[in-house]
Amino acid sequence: MTLIESAKKNKINELIRSVSHQESLSLDYLRKHILSGEIAVFKNKNHRLKKMCAVGKGLKTKINANIGTSTKKPNLKKELKKLEIAQKFGADTVMDLSVGGDLKKVRREVLKYSDIPVGTVPIYEAAVKTQKNKGTFLKMEPDELFAVLEDQAQEGVDFFTLHCGITRHSLELFKKNKRLLDIVSRGGAMLASWMSHNKRENPLYEDFDRVLDLAHRYDIVLSLGDALRPGSIFDATDKIQISELKVLGELTARAHKKNVQVIIEGPGHVPLNQIEKNVALEKKLCHKAPFYVLGPLVTDVASGYDHISSAIGGALAASFGADFLCYVTASEHLRHPSAEDVREGVIAARIAAHSADIVKGIPSALTWDREMSLARKKRNWQKQINFSIDPVKARLYKGHLKKNPVDVCTMCGNYCSIKLMEECLRV
Amino acid sequence: MTLIESAKKNKINELIRSVSHQESLSLDYLRKHILSGEIAVFKNKNHRLKKMCAVGKGLKTKINANIGTSTKKPNLKKELKKLEIAQKFGADTVMDLSVGGDLKKVRREVLKYSDIPVGTVPIYEAAVKTQKNKGTFLKMEPDELFAVLEDQAQEGVDFFTLHCGITRHSLELFKKNKRLLDIVSRGGAMLASWMSHNKRENPLYEDFDRVLDLAHRYDIVLSLGDALRPGSIFDATDKIQISELKVLGELTARAHKKNVQVIIEGPGHVPLNQIEKNVALEKKLCHKAPFYVLGPLVTDVASGYDHISSAIGGALAASFGADFLCYVTASEHLRHPSAEDVREGVIAARIAAHSADIVKGIPSALTWDREMSLARKKRNWQKQINFSIDPVKARLYKGHLKKNPVDVCTMCGNYCSIKLMEECLRV
Repeated sequence: MTLIESAKKNKINELIRSVSHQESLSLDYLRKHILSGEIAVFKNKNHRLKKMCAVGKGLKTKINANIGTSTKKPNLKKELKKLEIAQKFGADTVMDLSVGGDLKKVRREVLKYSDIPVGTVPIYEAAVKTQKNKGTFLKMEPDELFAVLEDQAQEGVDFFTLHCGITRHSLELFKKNKRLLDIVSRGGAMLASWMSHNKRENPLYEDFDRVLDLAHRYDIVLSLGDALRPGSIFDATDKIQISELKVLGELTARAHKKNVQVIIEGPGHVPLNQIEKNVALEKKLCHKAPFYVLGPLVTDVASGYDHISSAIGGALAASFGADFLCYVTASEHLRHPSAEDVREGVIAARIAAHSADIVKGIPSALTWDREMSLARKKRNWQKQINFSIDPVKARLYKGHLKKNPVDVCTMCGNYCSIKLMEECLRV
Repeated sequence: MTLIESAKKNKINELIRSVSHQESLSLDYLRKHILSGEIAVFKNKNHRLKKMCAVGKGLKTKINANIGTSTKKPNLKKELKKLEIAQKFGADTVMDLSVGGDLKKVRREVLKYSDIPVGTVPIYEAAVKTQKNKGTFLKMEPDELFAVLEDQAQEGVDFFTLHCGITRHSLELFKKNKRLLDIVSRGGAMLASWMSHNKRENPLYEDFDRVLDLAHRYDIVLSLGDALRPGSIFDATDKIQISELKVLGELTARAHKKNVQVIIEGPGHVPLNQIEKNVALEKKLCHKAPFYVLGPLVTDVASGYDHISSAIGGALAASFGADFLCYVTASEHLRHPSAEDVREGVIAARIAAHSADIVKGIPSALTWDREMSLARKKRNWQKQINFSIDPVKARLYKGHLKKNPVDVCTMCGNYCSIKLMEECLRV
């Protein structure tokens, strides 16, 4: 029985109970919105999780950290370190996007050491395998792709990014309409190349029922990917992007009918003033399914600082109703991320999510800021450090803590405004 | 003759010409908006500048970097290093906020080595001097404050932050209305303490004509400070803040009458969904004078990463019409910033300003993103590095550049989407 089926039968399982506890929301609220498809909970039947993660309406905005090997010098140990860092600094989920080395081994280790849900993009493994066996992934057979899905599902992957919405029709549209950057989704580019080369329909679209059947068996959340997302602000919200979103909306309805949970992936590179529209369109076209955005990046030129560009876009998107933010690291567009990039990326995404949760009115978010400001007023440094989004960095920056924790910092020294006011108001 | 007077007499001087060149805007456009007070140009008659800076309607959003000594271990050399870094990484102005060591010497060196306009908060020097001479700055006489203004004006400071809007009346209001954090502006807290202790009116308000006379003589831009800005998101847009903004609006009208240029300082800590209102209120109450915001920070808990929290708020504020962003560094709320903090702070603020300029429709901002995306499409790494907001960091992250600059990066390796599409579209 999938989660939606439980909800339909008004059965409340342990999973719902722990989400209810975690989010301080009633079982009834959760049941209702799981049923409507507005909330999704990531948990493969075969994966044991220590920390649950649900995304959607009324919940805290969640963030995902991507890890995984590259084709150049794949190193399992380094990826496991990134997993550790991502969890330590507060990622709600991780995606293993490995394309180098022994993919199965990496994934198994990630699944083993992850306390939080794990997502993948199965087309990567299918492409890498075919490349290895046949010299080019263009020779991949649909059955080989589905075999990878089955394998990964069996192993316990909690959510799959599947680019089901790129079709022969949307590729036609893509070829007719000019774009500055064509397709920047890795999985999307693989599928587009395969479809073009083989003159065949996208198997994930054509055989969507097979996808649904598989997702149903393991209760995997389908994260419907945006193969045609804009890779430049000049391509944002174009016909090509929206046509894919419409297809994803149709597929969402089909998934809900089969009691399969769905979230929708979103852009990408989007100027500040188009973000609200992007969120509204997703909610409208995709039956209010949770929206999972990659950034969005609000400029194309922030290489080296794309965690900041995406924090700007992510905060805005979430404040307008996006539910789940995929972090972008400072390395984006330049190199494979380091462990330090992962940490910065996680924190930047959490700042975006949290600042949106404040305006979403999430009670725990408001309490957090209130506690911090009270600690600041009392110049209680230990508490300020504890309430910082990254206490490790705050501790490092603050430096020496005197025995008396009520102190000024080196910024204003004796001219600390808070100290001055304390003295002035006491007069 | 001040700049406004020149504009009134339809005289175009070198200053206007260089701004016109820099911003690709007509002399007539600039003249018209300098006259209406919607554009301000920072330049003290006594200061030679290599790079001009104008802020306001239709112009690129500018950013300011704060530097200056603290009371603890003041170190001139370190501050000059920060000045160098701020300029190198693209600050449009710097403010010397020194409160430790030989303030005059620091300021003179900053004025000497700065190619860009320099601002100060003169109450700091007045307070530090009085503290030294009389044991407490509470014994400061208004004449001593005005003497500091005169001195600094003579030396060439281009703009002054003056907290003219905090009055006996607003302090009454402040005492009647609860706030989570009282006054977090350093200059504001100094003045409030002085006013409370001496039971006297704010001399910068009471003797505003004297302020105007002085600003007029040197053509200094008055940056009317927000002593009562919110220091917690829970205090944002409250009665206290808005009452001060109203006073600043009245003072703006008086300044314009005397042909003195004015910009208005804004918050502070503001939740995402109140930023638009804050910008609209400033434009409405302050006769469309340029708006200079400190952040705003969209959460109270991002200590150690407040450059990111403020980039989110700053991008949004500027997209709604704020003209000038004061950077906030990662050290904010924790310690005196390092040179590295200055660099990160400048870049974060520039990302915010630039992403807003894209939606403001500034042509050079759009061209920049277009050039970057074209370079990305061609996988031309040298160009991508050159077009990055911080080419030094981008170069470092990209690492080894092959002789053939068309390459993939270590992120996706052979599965580079752009390379795949290139091959696929060639088929």
